[in-house]
Amino acid sequence: MAVTKGLLFRQLFETESCTYTYLLADTDTKEAVIIDPVLETIDRDLKLIKELGLNLTVAVNTHCHADHITSTGRMKQRVAGLKSAISKFSGASADIHLKEGDKITFGRHFLSVRETPGHTNGCITLVTGDQSMAFTGDALLIRGCGRTDFQQGCAKKLYQSIHKKIFTLPEECLIYPAHDYLGQTVSTVGEERKFNPRLTKSIEGFVDIMNNLNLSSPKKMGIAVPANLVCGVHDV
Amino acid sequence: MAVTKGLLFRQLFETESCTYTYLLADTDTKEAVIIDPVLETIDRDLKLIKELGLNLTVAVNTHCHADHITSTGRMKQRVAGLKSAISKFSGASADIHLKEGDKITFGRHFLSVRETPGHTNGCITLVTGDQSMAFTGDALLIRGCGRTDFQQGCAKKLYQSIHKKIFTLPEECLIYPAHDYLGQTVSTVGEERKFNPRLTKSIEGFVDIMNNLNLSSPKKMGIAVPANLVCGVHDV
Repeated sequence: MAVTKGLLFRQLFETESCTYTYLLADTDTKEAVIIDPVLETIDRDLKLIKELGLNLTVAVNTHCHADHITSTGRMKQRVAGLKSAISKFSGASADIHLKEGDKITFGRHFLSVRETPGHTNGCITLVTGDQSMAFTGDALLIRGCGRTDFQQGCAKKLYQSIHKKIFTLPEECLIYPAHDYLGQTVSTVGEERKFNPRLTKSIEGFVDIMNNLNLSSPKKMGIAVPANLVCGVHDV
Repeated sequence: MAVTKGLLFRQLFETESCTYTYLLADTDTKEAVIIDPVLETIDRDLKLIKELGLNLTVAVNTHCHADHITSTGRMKQRVAGLKSAISKFSGASADIHLKEGDKITFGRHFLSVRETPGHTNGCITLVTGDQSMAFTGDALLIRGCGRTDFQQGCAKKLYQSIHKKIFTLPEECLIYPAHDYLGQTVSTVGEERKFNPRLTKSIEGFVDIMNNLNLSSPKKMGIAVPANLVCGVHDV
């Protein structure tokens, strides 16, 4: 479902890492983009893409994930002409290296890139052309945000990214994060500005919260980060 | 997100029973309806309703669930004026007993009731006024359907319900089921008519599939069904 005319939109969930994958397509030209696809659900995702008659042109990752392995590399092996995309600041190899203001076009639609570092240096938020939807990766989560204690994490930088690049979007802009652990699927800029328990604090308060989370490392970090630096497969 | 103007829409997920709860509201009057709320997620749901400033008027169950306990009764204890609703053929107690063609109105919007028995006798599908969204409960699932081997289940009846009452909706009508076990969040009437592996069969083929699933009983069936016959709490 999408509020934008002529946009096909699907939100898909991977249960082990609680990751959301997003599929967007032009309903006329059938050109499609997938955001943050996960290795474990590649068959589900490619089956859906085939059933819907879509031509998948770009697989984009919002950052180099530490908690799951991307299916981007495997998808490239199975989908002719598919290009991978990720931030130029991610340190990861890809066909397209994205920077602030770049556009990923599919038919009459596009996603524009906003750099939102803080969880990692290479985190981006992807915003639809009409600013009705923002895919925030691990920068802004629903009533939360990504952790900042590894992979170049910096709480101060994350706070500034969210306030300058996400909270400046229209109030009704829908927030689609890379993860949710409580069964929530979507939020809005207005809601997060009002109710996000971390981002409604001062920058000092935020940094203090983030520096005292004392989280354990993601289970798959040791294998996910090296793999995701090369599109999820060592042999691509 | 909703394609209908002035409709607030939220899809929420309960991980243990893989149940989807839906929240719909009029963005102006703030009147809201919740579909299939789950006991385990009552605090999350009521917190969101409060944050969004909604006035929850009806909690409706698509049927008497066998796999989880509804939070309807507990919600009634916590939300003044809230009414419970369920099919008159469910055998369950409620403030409102629904039948074919009934409407649940919230502000300028409404959900209309289509009786879709087969999984249970009291299964209903709720359709938005503009027929852009259908909440199919356990009748039609994404690329699947509810089981028909207990609680008055009847494969033939389910096949007819889906073909006559759901597949006759517009092709682009979004299908929101009560469950999904594969991380899928939404489908459309057109897609299910083309790709549902069970419903694309003849009625005889469908009955044959359904009679040979050999599924084990839902873990919570022994406590869920008696509880759900009284809005999820024995003491309401």
